[in-house]
Amino acid sequence: MPELKPDMNDGRMRAIIERITPSVDGGRFAAKRIVGDSVAVEADCFTDGHDTLACLLLWRREGEQKWHEAPMAPLVNDRWRGSFAAQSVGRYQYTVTAWVDHFLSWRHDFARRVEREDLRVAALAGAGLIEDAAGRAPARECQRLQGWAGRLRAEVDTPALKELGLDQELGALAARYPDRRYASTCPVEHPLVVDRERARFSSWYEMFPRSASGEPGRHGTLRDCEARLPYVAKMGFDVLYLPPIHPIGRINRKGANNTLVAGSGGVGSPWAIGSAEGGHKALHPELGTMADFRRLLASAQSQGMEIALDIAFQCAPDHPYVKAHPQWFRWRPDGTVQYAENPPKKYQDIFPFEFESDDWRGLWQELAGVIGFWAAEGVRIFRVDNPHTKPFPFWEWAITELKREYPDAIFLAEAFTRPKLMHRLAKLGFTQSYTYFAWRNTKHELTEYFTGLTQGPGREYFRPNAWPNTPDILTEYLQYGGRPAFVVRIVLAATLAASYGIYGPAFELAEATPREYGTEDYLDSEKYQIRSWNLDAPHSLSELIARVNRARRENPALQSDATLRFFPVDNDNLMCYAKADAAMENLVVTVVNLDPHHVQSGWVELDLAALGIDAQTPYQMHDLLSGARFLWSGPRNFVQLDPQRAPAHVFALRRKMRTERNFDYFL
Amino acid sequence: MPELKPDMNDGRMRAIIERITPSVDGGRFAAKRIVGDSVAVEADCFTDGHDTLACLLLWRREGEQKWHEAPMAPLVNDRWRGSFAAQSVGRYQYTVTAWVDHFLSWRHDFARRVEREDLRVAALAGAGLIEDAAGRAPARECQRLQGWAGRLRAEVDTPALKELGLDQELGALAARYPDRRYASTCPVEHPLVVDRERARFSSWYEMFPRSASGEPGRHGTLRDCEARLPYVAKMGFDVLYLPPIHPIGRINRKGANNTLVAGSGGVGSPWAIGSAEGGHKALHPELGTMADFRRLLASAQSQGMEIALDIAFQCAPDHPYVKAHPQWFRWRPDGTVQYAENPPKKYQDIFPFEFESDDWRGLWQELAGVIGFWAAEGVRIFRVDNPHTKPFPFWEWAITELKREYPDAIFLAEAFTRPKLMHRLAKLGFTQSYTYFAWRNTKHELTEYFTGLTQGPGREYFRPNAWPNTPDILTEYLQYGGRPAFVVRIVLAATLAASYGIYGPAFELAEATPREYGTEDYLDSEKYQIRSWNLDAPHSLSELIARVNRARRENPALQSDATLRFFPVDNDNLMCYAKADAAMENLVVTVVNLDPHHVQSGWVELDLAALGIDAQTPYQMHDLLSGARFLWSGPRNFVQLDPQRAPAHVFALRRKMRTERNFDYFL
Repeated sequence: MPELKPDMNDGRMRAIIERITPSVDGGRFAAKRIVGDSVAVEADCFTDGHDTLACLLLWRREGEQKWHEAPMAPLVNDRWRGSFAAQSVGRYQYTVTAWVDHFLSWRHDFARRVEREDLRVAALAGAGLIEDAAGRAPARECQRLQGWAGRLRAEVDTPALKELGLDQELGALAARYPDRRYASTCPVEHPLVVDRERARFSSWYEMFPRSASGEPGRHGTLRDCEARLPYVAKMGFDVLYLPPIHPIGRINRKGANNTLVAGSGGVGSPWAIGSAEGGHKALHPELGTMADFRRLLASAQSQGMEIALDIAFQCAPDHPYVKAHPQWFRWRPDGTVQYAENPPKKYQDIFPFEFESDDWRGLWQELAGVIGFWAAEGVRIFRVDNPHTKPFPFWEWAITELKREYPDAIFLAEAFTRPKLMHRLAKLGFTQSYTYFAWRNTKHELTEYFTGLTQGPGREYFRPNAWPNTPDILTEYLQYGGRPAFVVRIVLAATLAASYGIYGPAFELAEATPREYGTEDYLDSEKYQIRSWNLDAPHSLSELIARVNRARRENPALQSDATLRFFPVDNDNLMCYAKADAAMENLVVTVVNLDPHHVQSGWVELDLAALGIDAQTPYQMHDLLSGARFLWSGPRNFVQLDPQRAPAHVFALRRKMRTERNFDYFL
Repeated sequence: MPELKPDMNDGRMRAIIERITPSVDGGRFAAKRIVGDSVAVEADCFTDGHDTLACLLLWRREGEQKWHEAPMAPLVNDRWRGSFAAQSVGRYQYTVTAWVDHFLSWRHDFARRVEREDLRVAALAGAGLIEDAAGRAPARECQRLQGWAGRLRAEVDTPALKELGLDQELGALAARYPDRRYASTCPVEHPLVVDRERARFSSWYEMFPRSASGEPGRHGTLRDCEARLPYVAKMGFDVLYLPPIHPIGRINRKGANNTLVAGSGGVGSPWAIGSAEGGHKALHPELGTMADFRRLLASAQSQGMEIALDIAFQCAPDHPYVKAHPQWFRWRPDGTVQYAENPPKKYQDIFPFEFESDDWRGLWQELAGVIGFWAAEGVRIFRVDNPHTKPFPFWEWAITELKREYPDAIFLAEAFTRPKLMHRLAKLGFTQSYTYFAWRNTKHELTEYFTGLTQGPGREYFRPNAWPNTPDILTEYLQYGGRPAFVVRIVLAATLAASYGIYGPAFELAEATPREYGTEDYLDSEKYQIRSWNLDAPHSLSELIARVNRARRENPALQSDATLRFFPVDNDNLMCYAKADAAMENLVVTVVNLDPHHVQSGWVELDLAALGIDAQTPYQMHDLLSGARFLWSGPRNFVQLDPQRAPAHVFALRRKMRTERNFDYFL
């Protein structure tokens, strides 16, 4: 005969809770939200039979003992929803509790009872339940409830009894003191990370400090960067990301165009970190001093920008770690340190860390300490180089712990690798992620990819940051498409993704020559040499970029990815999509000609119902790039785009309002 | 500075394991399989960097200490798959372990090395790894591996060294003794329930024993049921399900057509269980004795059938429990027991159990004991009445524990309720589930519903059992569609679902008169009175049913639901679908005219590639109902179905083979 084990749940816990959302891998990882968001939580909640269920959303900041409670209401098909406000950055937890509510069940049935005797007996049962509730209520409410119960017991007139039992106010009062002895609570305390707004909406500009001098032949400094800030700010960027600024190794230093030997005067790659001058916590002497760095941070901040640093956990052969911590490297049988390699290729200027070191704890502490060092200096944004070549558990620990101390820290994962690895990094804590955007060119590719990013499971944790170029990625499309290709790609990046970035000045100057055709490497890449850029060149895209970034700043629709939606165009070279803000008040519709060579035209078909537009009333399309305004009506409208003039429209869609005040846009 | 907690995992555990399938609610519930199945388990497994991963599937029968290991191989995109054979019924567990395999990584790189010095140093490193493997190997293999390592250290000729390092046999040997110190193992031990074949493939016939006498006016007995067995067996059913066979309450007994008073001679509803003669462990005296019952079980078994009993946990007012265990019922303030009600409706012949009783443990034990009692008598199939009106945790405990003692037990959940509740019952342990099939009539409805059942998450745990009618469900389609409607519905049930059932003889005699139009109740329902049936009526469908059931027995394609696939027909009254066995050797294509009134015709479009058919070669369609054979070719073929003659084709699709031996079907 079956035995009841003494440690099992009380059998009277009859409420069932399933499928809480948001949920990342069943609560193993945190969902992500932004401070100020209303965090909607849903769950399937039900019980056996016909009793009435009550559900509450429980939430707290991590570390709080007590749960806060928020009501949950049924939607359809046993799905319930509640929400709470994420009022500050940091980690939260949430779960759901539910119970069979006998008072609510009684009231539900009481409303349907008809016969005098049936009502009388039910009233007595109800009085008992109300007295129980009174016992859980504070003194004043206790008295009111007891009075109600007493009147229910005494009332003899049937219509009066029914009315008394269904008293709205007293019913609501009794419902506030439910019997939760047999409540079921989902044992998984789902984690939530609440970030500041820039985690969702950011515009990045990458720049090599050593090329910032403006004078051919002179090594740029942090002071030169400071002088460059107004240029970057004018284009509307809010994150200025600098490749590594640490001392560069001398041993096996690479030369221009990635040649094996630097030669005298060769500046090497900033990612070959460490020399006699110091390692990951030091500044490259030619860039300046810590005082210069602090000035740069402050100056950027005063211009509405933040400095992002590069975290590249690898060492040049002359990095001080190699001597001080030989156990952090892998040693070859010939007594040398294992350099980076992908046989038969060798990268002898780089030593990777050996994460299977017996001293992995010391290594983890030190590496997290590197980030902590710069965080203590005031840096809050870190672009992490190749995180997928370091153990995932390291990042989960380091980011979680660092964000406990610096909850406003932002980590961008530079992992151009297989999808599961990229998602794991996002799940375990990276705030933003580079994407495959650079290699998605056709309407089909872009639609598939961004639909997956914004509607797949990653929407809860993977925040895309779209880059049309990087110092390592000069795409074929940019190499062959001319200036229009650069316009197309920055408009796509900036309107498809709430976070995007460019590597400049190469981008705004439409630098398109590869080191060798068939590769994506830049000729004379700044990775290995200093470049001098003519920022005032007439073909510069800086003014267009400024308009794009202003459109992003002024339109909340472009500041998040959740509402991205694609619309049909009867020409595969044209693509159309829209974003909206949470209230569906700000709408931006982008139409792009993906063909950088030819004029393309076609009929765009908007889903007016989804956009909340009356199909009978004209609406205004205000192109935020050209300033032109068009009056559209109905779902189908004609578009023609000449890549030489303007390969894209970024329309603010303005619904026609009935009040006079709202007619001003027709001026 | 971030702290490393002493209880965290070793940081050298670098393998990541995600998204194991099958997985029901992340391993909270068991997936279901059938004895003899190969259980394929998949997981996303990967690690940082470029090292080579090794993965193993771990599995064991519940209760075993040691895991068995099965190899896993990569599919695509970091997905791995392994499998094990479910060799006996019962509960299993499985999980996945993975580690970074340094020997495999070494071999991968060694194959790509070119330079003499590079190979020499790598050979020394490899020799060290091989010596480590030798230390984990038994004596003989240890010696072989050490010999290999020694030769690797000594070899000076470059081509010979490369060949030696890549020795296939020695490499495979070393790989058998990996270093698993830092292996990651998914901590969720996923449960699996392995049932006997009838859990997946069963044909049910429901019959009221008291109507089995064949003589108008005489109460049928279990002996009469025994005499009826050959009739049921001839139709090809393998489960004979009897409504409750226990004493029927006398207090508030219902009369014919569900009238409030039974009157003298009224037999009452078998679901009003319990009287002075006994309760759930007793037999209704008019049906016979326990000796008769045992004879019935044995006789059914000898004819290839099993008896299924009805488990209806509720009591008539005169059930012995009411006096013996008053604490198992809810008492009203007027001192009476709470009867079943759905205000303003009352069901005063039925007392539900009070599962919130302080003695819930005693109640659970007793109810599980009821099932245990009949299981001890040899019953292994239970149709559970309204399980969704009893607490879900009760069923999870009772079914799990009963199946530990009777692992071949089968439980069918009769829960015609909301989808989430039905799924919960299936997840927590019910072997099969009634469905909404009875109310899905159009091509769109049937396609949507069965696609969801066979391809949605429920495919791992929800086994549909499709019934065109029950004593409570005489659908509108059957009421108005005449005899063709009955043929259509049984063909659909029997070919869409591997398990199905009918309530007879009402079904095969096409009984179609409702108690009242607008309801689904039968006129003169057997629930409340004895009926006498003319089994030899010329319009009986028994011969057609026999053909349908023979087609099911002889075609493995119809014995599982996993491969169900729908094909387009250019007429919405015609629907077409196919099933295949696991090896795709047995193919059954069904075409049904859903319109019971008119001849319908149209072009069926098979997906030949999915069915493994050469588009250039004709194939044979053998109608298992009529015996007719058609030669089809290409994807599009014409079908015309006259409901008066034959509303459906159930085709065995036979591919033309090239060997002479296989031409015999063209005779």
